Order: sequence, then C-alpha cells, then structure tokens
Amino acid sequence: MDGLKFVGQRVPKKDAPLKATGDAVYIQDLKVPGMLHGKILYSKYPHARIVKIDTAKALALPGVKAVLTGADVPNNFKFGFLKDNPPLKSGKVLSTRDEIAAVAAVSLEIAEEALDLIEVEYEELPGIFDPLTAMKEGSALIHEELKSNVLKLPWKFVHGDVEAAKKESAFIAEDTFSTQWVTHCCLGTSGCVATFDASNNLTVYSNTQIPSLAQNDFLEALKTFGLKKKRVRVIQAVIGGGFGSKLDTYAYEYIAILLALKTRKPVKIVFSREEEFLATSPRQCTITKISQGCDKDGRLTFREMEMVLDNGAYTSWGATTPSVMMVPISSLYKVPNIKYTAKCVYTNNTYCQAFRGYGNPQATFAIESCLDQLAEKAGIDPHEIRRINANEPGELTPQNFKITSCGMKDCIEEVVKRLDWKGKRGKADGRGVGMASLIHVGGAARVYKSDGCGTIIKVDDNGKVDVITGSSEIGQGSDTIIAQIVAEVLGVGVDDINIINNDTDVCPWDVGAHASRTTFVAGNSALGAAEKIRDQIMEIAAKTLGEPVEALEMKDGIIFSKNDKEKNIPFGKVLRKAHYSLGGRMLVAENFYDPPNENFDQTFRGNLSVTYAYGAHGVEVEVDKETGQVKILNYIAAHDVGKAINPMLLEGQIYGGGLQGIGYALGERMIYDKGYLKNGNFLDYKMPTVRDVPPVQAVIVESDEHAGPFGAKGIGEPGLVPTAPAIANAIYDAVGVRIKDLPITPEKILKALKEKAKQNG
Amino acid sequence: MDGLKFVGQRVPKKDAPLKATGDAVYIQDLKVPGMLHGKILYSKYPHARIVKIDTAKALALPGVKAVLTGADVPNNFKFGFLKDNPPLKSGKVLSTRDEIAAVAAVSLEIAEEALDLIEVEYEELPGIFDPLTAMKEGSALIHEELKSNVLKLPWKFVHGDVEAAKKESAFIAEDTFSTQWVTHCCLGTSGCVATFDASNNLTVYSNTQIPSLAQNDFLEALKTFGLKKKRVRVIQAVIGGGFGSKLDTYAYEYIAILLALKTRKPVKIVFSREEEFLATSPRQCTITKISQGCDKDGRLTFREMEMVLDNGAYTSWGATTPSVMMVPISSLYKVPNIKYTAKCVYTNNTYCQAFRGYGNPQATFAIESCLDQLAEKAGIDPHEIRRINANEPGELTPQNFKITSCGMKDCIEEVVKRLDWKGKRGKADGRGVGMASLIHVGGAARVYKSDGCGTIIKVDDNGKVDVITGSSEIGQGSDTIIAQIVAEVLGVGVDDINIINNDTDVCPWDVGAHASRTTFVAGNSALGAAEKIRDQIMEIAAKTLGEPVEALEMKDGIIFSKNDKEKNIPFGKVLRKAHYSLGGRMLVAENFYDPPNENFDQTFRGNLSVTYAYGAHGVEVEVDKETGQVKILNYIAAHDVGKAINPMLLEGQIYGGGLQGIGYALGERMIYDKGYLKNGNFLDYKMPTVRDVPPVQAVIVESDEHAGPFGAKGIGEPGLVPTAPAIANAIYDAVGVRIKDLPITPEKILKALKEKAKQNG
Repeated sequence: MDGLKFVGQRVPKKDAPLKATGDAVYIQDLKVPGMLHGKILYSKYPHARIVKIDTAKALALPGVKAVLTGADVPNNFKFGFLKDNPPLKSGKVLSTRDEIAAVAAVSLEIAEEALDLIEVEYEELPGIFDPLTAMKEGSALIHEELKSNVLKLPWKFVHGDVEAAKKESAFIAEDTFSTQWVTHCCLGTSGCVATFDASNNLTVYSNTQIPSLAQNDFLEALKTFGLKKKRVRVIQAVIGGGFGSKLDTYAYEYIAILLALKTRKPVKIVFSREEEFLATSPRQCTITKISQGCDKDGRLTFREMEMVLDNGAYTSWGATTPSVMMVPISSLYKVPNIKYTAKCVYTNNTYCQAFRGYGNPQATFAIESCLDQLAEKAGIDPHEIRRINANEPGELTPQNFKITSCGMKDCIEEVVKRLDWKGKRGKADGRGVGMASLIHVGGAARVYKSDGCGTIIKVDDNGKVDVITGSSEIGQGSDTIIAQIVAEVLGVGVDDINIINNDTDVCPWDVGAHASRTTFVAGNSALGAAEKIRDQIMEIAAKTLGEPVEALEMKDGIIFSKNDKEKNIPFGKVLRKAHYSLGGRMLVAENFYDPPNENFDQTFRGNLSVTYAYGAHGVEVEVDKETGQVKILNYIAAHDVGKAINPMLLEGQIYGGGLQGIGYALGERMIYDKGYLKNGNFLDYKMPTVRDVPPVQAVIVESDEHAGPFGAKGIGEPGLVPTAPAIANAIYDAVGVRIKDLPITPEKILKALKEKAKQNG
Repeated sequence: MDGLKFVGQRVPKKDAPLKATGDAVYIQDLKVPGMLHGKILYSKYPHARIVKIDTAKALALPGVKAVLTGADVPNNFKFGFLKDNPPLKSGKVLSTRDEIAAVAAVSLEIAEEALDLIEVEYEELPGIFDPLTAMKEGSALIHEELKSNVLKLPWKFVHGDVEAAKKESAFIAEDTFSTQWVTHCCLGTSGCVATFDASNNLTVYSNTQIPSLAQNDFLEALKTFGLKKKRVRVIQAVIGGGFGSKLDTYAYEYIAILLALKTRKPVKIVFSREEEFLATSPRQCTITKISQGCDKDGRLTFREMEMVLDNGAYTSWGATTPSVMMVPISSLYKVPNIKYTAKCVYTNNTYCQAFRGYGNPQATFAIESCLDQLAEKAGIDPHEIRRINANEPGELTPQNFKITSCGMKDCIEEVVKRLDWKGKRGKADGRGVGMASLIHVGGAARVYKSDGCGTIIKVDDNGKVDVITGSSEIGQGSDTIIAQIVAEVLGVGVDDINIINNDTDVCPWDVGAHASRTTFVAGNSALGAAEKIRDQIMEIAAKTLGEPVEALEMKDGIIFSKNDKEKNIPFGKVLRKAHYSLGGRMLVAENFYDPPNENFDQTFRGNLSVTYAYGAHGVEVEVDKETGQVKILNYIAAHDVGKAINPMLLEGQIYGGGLQGIGYALGERMIYDKGYLKNGNFLDYKMPTVRDVPPVQAVIVESDEHAGPFGAKGIGEPGLVPTAPAIANAIYDAVGVRIKDLPITPEKILKALKEKAKQNG
C-alpha cells in the first residue's frame, strides 16, 4: 500500500460544491414541464371501515385534474415484501398512515384544498396497537385473509445445544429489553415525479436508494395495471439523506404513477415534513428476551434470544431485519450455542422499514446490555469479558461466517486506553464508563439474488474520465470514494473523474445503497473497470515506448519505463494515440463485481458477507441524579475499517452514526398513542442537534481486508450499532441503574433511581 | 441475408411518437433553472470600423445582467477552422452578420430592448462582395494580417496528363457554371444554453451535430479564457434538422458561454428565424470553369476544373468542401486524366459551412451539365455516355478510392427504363428528359483524425436493451436504424431497444452526424457491440442447455439447439441466469468501430471512404415557354444503397434530398446585395413546400456492400447531389436552352429563350 496518492487521503467530497452552492437539484427542486402536483389523503382512524368516499366536490374544484381512491387501483395491485399493501386502500383502513384518496392538481395549494373537499364516511373499529396482544390466541385479525397476525416468515436459528449449555454454565444472565420506533429524519423528504411518454413507458424521478429494484417494482406494477412490455426508467434526484428510509418503494410512488397515467401528465408528490414523519417507515420497535451464559473463566457458553417485532399494518423489506439481527446474535463474540427466534407481528401501527444497521442496533442493545449483567454476575470486568470472547481472524462462526480480517480486539483495547477505562470504571459517583462492541457485514450482504454492481468507465482524449456506476450517492460519499479508487489506478487527479450514478438508462445494475456495501462492492467494481482501462493504456504505451508492459509504471499522469526513465509518455498522449490512428478507439471498459458471498440456506447459514466489520464504542457519562439528565463527557468510537480510503469521510460516517446512535439511546422516539402519531415534527421529535454533539474520537483501526478495494470494508452502518448499550452500560456504572427500554430518558433514570433507593432503603 | 426479421423492414421511426405528441424537448423548449436569455447585436454595415460602443444605457435597463462587447473576449480568442473568427468583434466588422455586442437579461423581451439601447458609432468602409474582385492583385484585404484574400488551403489535385489528353481527345466541351448561396432551412433554429457549475465546469445544451468535436472546441475556448483543466459536457436537445448547419461551433455558443461566465447563470441563446437566415452559414456559392473530353467512342479522356468559392469573411470547417468536391471530380465515371484547383476567397459576405453533399452538388452540377454538352458534341446519347464511362466494382480511381460494390450502371438503367428515356428524349417540344449520376462517400469519410463511433450496450433482467451510442439522431433516423440492427442481432423487438445518444458524459466519442456516415459507422459499431452481447448470451445458454455454442440459434427471444428444438431457453431467462447467480453479471458490452478508411495524403490521394454510394436521377420536365416556368412531370431517383435497413426511412432520405435538390435547382437563393441579406425569411426565400412536391420514384438498388452493417451504405446526402444537373439537362432537352447558373429561374429561362430566338432569327 506504499506510495498511494489518493487512496488514504482526506479528499473533500466531490459533491460538496454542488450542495454548498445550492446547485444540487433535489426532488423538491425538480420541475418537469407540464407537471401536476399530487397530494394524498390519509385515514382519520387507525382501524375503520370506509363506508363511503365522495370525491365529487374535490373533482369539481378548478385546477383539479384527477381524484383517485382505492377503486381506481387496477387489478387489486398490492406492493411490498409480502404484497399486502395496496397503494390506495379500499374497504378497511389499518393504520393512520393508510392512503385512501389522492389528488392531482395544477398547484400544490389546489391539491391540498381538494383533499379537504373529499368526504369520507368511516365506521371506526377497535384497533390493536401492541404486538403481544396481537399475537394472542383469539385476537382480532389485522389481515383477515392471512388467518394470523404473526407473519409467516420463519426467523429461527439454532446452533449447538442451548439447553445443555445452560446446565453447564457457571453464570447466566437473563433479562428483557425493548426498543422504540425511531425515524430517519432525512433532511430531504421523500418524493417523486412520475411521467409517461406517448408509448406508455414510465419515467420516475425519485430520491430512492434502490434504483434498480425500484425499476423492477414499477415494472411489475405496470404489468398489473395492464401495461405489458413497457420500459421503466428511474432517475435519481440528488438525495438529501437515506439511512434506509428509501430502501423500498412506497405507496406515494405508485399513487404518482396512477395519477400520471390518469392525467397523462407528469405528477409530482413530495412529502411535507409532517408526511415524512407519518408516512415513511421507521425502525421496528422490539421486545427481546435474552439469556446468556459463561463458564467460570468468562467464556461465553450460550446465547438465547426471543424477539417480537411490531410489523405494523403492512410488510416492507424491513420485515427481513431479523436476518441481519442474526449477525450479532450468532456471531458477536465466540458463542458455541445459539438459539434465536423472532416473530414479526401485524398491528394497527405504522409499518416499519430499513434503518441504518437494519436490526443490528436492537439486537446489540440486548446482547451488550446483558453481557455487562453477565460480567457482573461472573465478577469479571466488562472489558475483560469482551476481550476473552472477542472474534478473531480465521474463525468460522455458527452461521458459517468466514471471519477474514478482524480488528475487534484492537478496537476494544483502543477504547480501554483512550477512555482511561481502568482509572474511571466502577466509581459509582455519578460518572461512569461503559462499552459495547459490534459486528456487522463489511463486505456486502447477499439479501437479494444478486449483490453486484456494474461500472462502465470511458476516458476521453483529454484524460477526463467518466465513471458510470450503479451505486448511489446518498450523502455517504460514494462518488468521492469511487473517484479516489479510479484516480489511484489511472494515475489521474480526482478532479479528472466524473461520476454518473443516477439514471437506470445508462447506469448498470446495483442492488442498492444498503448493508454498508457501496465502498466494498461499487469500489471493487470500479477498481476492476479502472484496471482494465489501465491495462489497455499500458499495452499501448508499451508498444509506443518499445518496452514490455511489466517494465512500465504510471505516476502523476506519466507512464515510464522502470528500466529507463527517459522512456516515458504522458497519459493523455497515449489516449490520443489510441484514438487518433487507423482502427483507433476511445478507451471504454466495463466491469461487474458480484461479491463471492452467499445467500442464507434454509437453516440461515451461509457466508452472508465477504468480510465483517468490527468495532467497539466506549463512553464516559455524567448522570445528574436530581434531573436524570445524562451528559456524555467523552466518546470513543473505534472501528475496524479494513483500510480508510478517505479518513475524513470515514470519520464523518462515524460521527454521524455515533450521533444518530446517541439520539436513539437518549431521546428519539416516535410517540404513538393508540395508532395516532403524537410528535410528528422536529419540534416534538427530539433529534440531537449540533448543540448536543459530545466530544467524539473516531479511532480508525486498519486490518487490511484482502478482498476489499485497497483493503477497505464497509463502514456506513456500524457507527450507531453499539452506541445505546455502551451508554446504558456507562449509566449503570455511573449510578447503578440499568435502563432496559430505549430511549433512556431522564424520567426513566429518575424512576429507576427512586426504585433503587426504595430497594436499598 | 435470409431470415432477417427487422433489418429490411419498414419499421416506423422510434422517435416519431415523441415528436408527434410534442413531448420532444427541442432547444426552444428547454428551461434550465435560473436561466437568463441572451441576445446578439449584429453589425449595421458589411464593412466598417467600430469607432465607439456605448453599453451604459443597455446595462442600466432593469433586468439586464450583462452586456459584452469584443473587449470582453479574453486573450484574443478566435474560433473556426483557421481560428480567424472572434465571437464578438473589435476594431473592424467584416460582414453584416458580425457579432459586436451581446446581452443577457432575465427575459428575451428585455434582452431585445437592451440591444436597442446599445449605441454604436461606425465608420463605414467600402466592401468587397465578389470573390473574383477580391482575388485581384492589389485588392483591399479582408484580413489585413493575412496578406491575401485567398485562403492558404492548397486545394489541388492532378492525375495523369490533362494537356496531353486534350490533344488526343476527339471531342471537348468546356464552359463555366455557377451556383448560389442556399441555406439549410432547418425547422428547428439553432440555439444553446451554457451553464457553469461552482467549479467552473461547463455544460452546454445544444442542437449541435458534433457533440464530441464541440466538446473539444469549448474546452479549447475555456483554456483560452484562463479556465484550465475544466470539464465540458455537451448535452444535445432534440434536433429539428441539421443538414450540416450544425457541423461547426458558432459565435453564439461562445457568446452564451461568456455571458454565463460573466453572470454565473445559465444563459440561453436561441435564434429567431431571421437570425437563423442571417447568422448561420449557407452552402458556398461557386464559379467553376470546366473542360471535359472524350474519344470518338465517347470514352472520357480528361476532366479539368478550376473553381472559385466565396468563403465570406471568416472560415469554418466548410472551407474544406473542395476536398469532398474532389470525390466526383476525380472519380465520377472513369476519367484517366484529372486536373483540379480550387480557391476559397475572403469577401465581406456571409461565411459558408457544411450543407448536405458538402460541395458535391456544386461540382456535380458542372460535371454533369458539361457531360451532356460533351455528349451532344460527340453525337452520343447522354444516357449512353454515362453507361460507357460508369464506375464499376474493383476499380481504383485517380484519388485511390477503392470501389468495392457499385450499382451505378443499374441505377442508370433504372432511370432509362422508368423514365421511358428512349421514347421521350430529343423531342424538343417543351417537354424533355434529363439525367445525371452521382458518386459520394458511402462508408464514412476520414476528414478528421478519427472517423470512429463508440457504442455501449447493456441488457437488463427483463430483456430491455439500452444502447448508448456516440451517434446523433438529427431526424435522419439513426435511432431506428441502430435499434433494428441491435434487435436483429439479439433477437428481441425494436421496442425493447432504448437508444441513448445525447450526452457526452455517457455517450462514447463520435466524429459527428456528417458524411452520410451514421448508418455505416454507428451501425457497425452497434453491430459489433450487439454481437459481443449475443456471444455472452450464447455462451451462458450453451452451458445451461448442455449444447455447444455452434449448435445454438436465437429467434423471437428464444435460444434453441438446432439439433434438438426441445432444448431451448428464453432470452430473458438467460439474462437472469447470468445475473442472479454467484459471480453473476449484468451483460454489458462496448465496441468502438473506426472504419478502415484513409486520410488524404499531401497529393489528396487516399481511400477516403470504405465504400462509395452511387446513384442516378432522371427527370421529365415541361417548360412553359411563355412564363419560363418549369414543371417536373416525373422524377426517378435510383440509389445504390448497399442494403436498405429500413426502406421507409431510406425513401424518406431520398424524397427529402430530392426535394431539397429541386429547391436548389429551381428556386432557392439567398439574395445578398452588397453584403446585405434581402430575403432572410420564409416569405421571400422560396423553399419548396408540400405543394411543390413532384411525383418522385425512389428506386432502391442493393449492391450488398460487404463492409457495411448488413450490407448497408450511407445514403444521407446523395439524394440532392445530381438533382440540379438532371433538371438542367432535361430543360435543355425540352427547349434547347442550357442554364449554367443556379437557380434556374423562369427569368433566366425566358432570357435564354429570347437570346436563342434572336440567334436563330
């Protein structure tokens, strides 16, 4: 890795000027000629029968071009992971975010006015807002035709013999932990513009994170609508935050499509902030029963977990989070015996989705909180029990994950050292330290049939490089990382690289911006394409210079012979030589990289990711016993990243993840009261702001992953995975109370302190 | 060629729905957020010194954001083939289309108002409006620094010994012919939008025919403006007609760039119809002295031509038309001895450019008119002299053109037969028939260092095919032709093919839509890319079916074994198999096709084109001796096209070319009076309209050119090449007068008839 010029550098984000100057065209900014504005009417009740919808007055309003209801959805079309969600509901509504009518009008104001003119008569029904109630025998059914409120998704993993292990364990800790709904708080709200051409081919402008999958989804929808053999093009507007919120298609997109089809005009639907809170899908709330044991030396003997997830009224890709939860459950630390079941349960609540970490934060909260409980029982320092059980290179985990590079122990040691763990632990004086570790996929995650990404590179006569990639820039910095990789291989500048990433017409397939996979997969894809270009260039240079290819080296835009540096030729000259001669060619190369990872088998075994990311977070807190307020005094986030292609962007990911994790741990919560969202705005939903940023040290541990581009692993999600348990553990160290239900609000701490005082008193 | 499914079919134009519905975004329709409108002030005089320009009042007008004059052009930047043209003129103006100031304002109306407020003080100078005067010793100089009004472009071709041949000839005809300025009359006027991003990278939206060359031109301009190492992106709006008018960059594009740079806003300049007449560049007017001889059997012995071209005040790519004129001059018919010189001469007239045929119509008018004169002298039927001297396959012409396939004789015979030549010729009763032949490049033309075109094809999981091509759809039908070729190779439908052709960021290099090269070059490029995809598909299908690749055939989207038709697999299934497996890939292929043609050497020899297109036009006219009016009774246009990939589009090219040729022959003319354009609008400039369309038979002769895609040659330009001499020859047959100066107006015929009567009387 010596002599790298761009990889490893703190290169500023390529898209920063665009965003800083306001030139970026977000979906909010996008205007398509002749465009109408769509608006959606949501259900007044969480559970009700729609007796009657009268749209006549709305339709009569001047400027209104169409009003649709569930009756206008062709052929009973439903979308979502289990195809249980019609874009406009008929008959019954199952949650307060249920879409029951939609309007297209010449202005947003008229569309909003028209919504008020739609008259809906409901017959309110009793709702079920708690998955435990919904699971009970004899409970009313959310979807009557499904005969059960428990989703038929067989989330179960068994390895070894947990019952036997329990008997042999020296210490066992068990408890129940729960987590809340939190939402992504993307600063750019969701939206799209749908438009048909004269041949009924569809273009959807969207800020989706999954252009290729969305293209397939929309194509399926068109087929159901009776439009066979059509083309679908997805163009991504600049994305103002993703975090998983845009990892699935939504009702509003199908509604825009239906309105566009009805009106023969482009139709734009963009969420207001209130709609973004109400009608996008948050992180699942979970109830987790966990039991872990160890032997007398602190070696873990088993882990047993039972989880209930509130699925809400419909099912998105997010219902597959239990599969990613299995990653830490089966493989965080060496645990010989594992038993895990999860149930996703329909309720009349909002339905849930992907969110950074995809279930891992919920699972890790339980595991790492409970591990501290176990350490206490065993009389072992929490740091020590983690060190003893830490994962190591060469391991094959119960789920058959092949652990290649693994910097977990280094991360734990960094936390211990930088936090002054030994000096600060166990004082119980209102200040305390806590830690938690993490494992996550770091080399993609094969959750779909293909986990690949394609890249096309073309180089013009002036040495400018166009990189057409399947990957999506969602703010995470993928454009910059890919540019650094290509610049490194081709020996040109990062500014010479232009990334094209937003149009399914020209961009090759990619499964989406998820699973922390973009640097790894899109990076490897771009690396391979760049190497093909470099090989072509070297071949031409070799012929020109009369030297063998092996003797050539490229640096700073010059190709020279290692034997004789006088023999050299500039990059641009080779390109023109290649092009401006008989039988010449512009250099173009394409590469598709599909990682050698595996889909799970029926038993949920398989090497899901080519490599795994590790990390440990440590935190020092001060708890105000009078107010219950928690102040973070110091925060260490140590991550095994393989190789930092851009330390600045990487630190940005860690800071951002850490802060999002702190919000999850200490304050964020969507408050639903019997199906009604009570705090769907930034005033009442307490996202940490710049004033809440604690001192965070991002510690980069490089383990040089051989399969990664220049040794890199994915690092998009890990930053928030261990945050909540690290804080919960620190609070316990500080004041002796353990909060098992996120978020850890001052109220809960005060209540726990009172109870503790009562018990002690 | 048996069993072709799409190639050879009358497939409707792929872009027809877009254009018929009004969905096409022409440059006129394009809006870029924050866009200003630019407008140009042209010189009041054809030759004058600018004493003073006062822009203060214009700048003070509310809504005006910038006013530029020649003083604002950085570093003495000039553009054009000889870099003699500053986008805004300082010091002296040299023609009435000289740009002397430009305004950017928030609306077009304000920009126009601002132009009126610019005060210019001129000192008028005497002008030179005639190239013969300009050539004279001691004439005033248009560009003083160049020391001569004759361009230093050495257009001279000599082969054999013309002087000796003259002596040995049995018959010699010589005369002088002249042609007028005509303009392209594109229904979409020229225009662009220029915009810089925060890093000073430039995007130009334009209806250019040469995106790659324009990109280079703009990049050079930026460098001169002091903006080094920037990126330039050219995006083509839908093009409403090209015909060569957009084969070079224009002052208005650089002015838009300078205004955008000054205002930091996108600036749009779109020509009004009047500006389109005034400030785009017409076909050169020419004066040609020609002499041709034959032996007693009618075999041509020599051809000598001296040509003077009015270059106007500045020099575009169009100044190279004499090189293409050489094609017929050296190689139309078998002529053993050739001598040709051409002089391009600066005047104070409008400067000229490329126009369909690129000089060939001017040269062919002289050659084919004079050939009839020679035939008359030799007492040979004009049809017979053409048959005797016709080109043939296997010939190597004086310029070293390698004649591969050649359907010239067939074309001549078709004309004779369909026109009832023998029945109608020589009656001199007011009705007459005439004919003329043509040769043109038909397999590209290497006028630039690269004559290539790149293609990238990607195929998605649903069997939809995206073809990213360097070629430009300028109405000629290239999208449809390319789609037919790709569909034929891949066995999918034409509707499954999506052509992407308008963005230098994603489209590979192409030298431009000129020289009738797109079907041949872009077609071959797409063919090669499609074959690579097919090979990949066949390989996967072979593995899947357990059959060797050679045993497989693809038809109607199914791949089957010729040995066992039960062994088959649909196209889409192979794609998904390729993609949805470990190490899978989306199928992408790229191909660059650079034809094996040659740049001319110093003596103007070299195989300019891989193959040559031939044709013969025959026409029957009726001349009203009272009015001089010519009525076309029948028109036969027979063309050797290699292979008609789409007979309907091909006929469209022939009809369009023929009608444009008829306009050239009989009516169109830009009237310049001492440098002032007198008929710059569609009322006074007589373009044929639908009422003027005569009965045209397009006769397709297929010679199956082995180097062409599926046997095709280029056919974009030939349709208008022999039209004017065929008509002139028919008029001579009808009424015995020969008009040697285009256009052949009733006035000229009447005048000639009177003179003839006087001589006879």
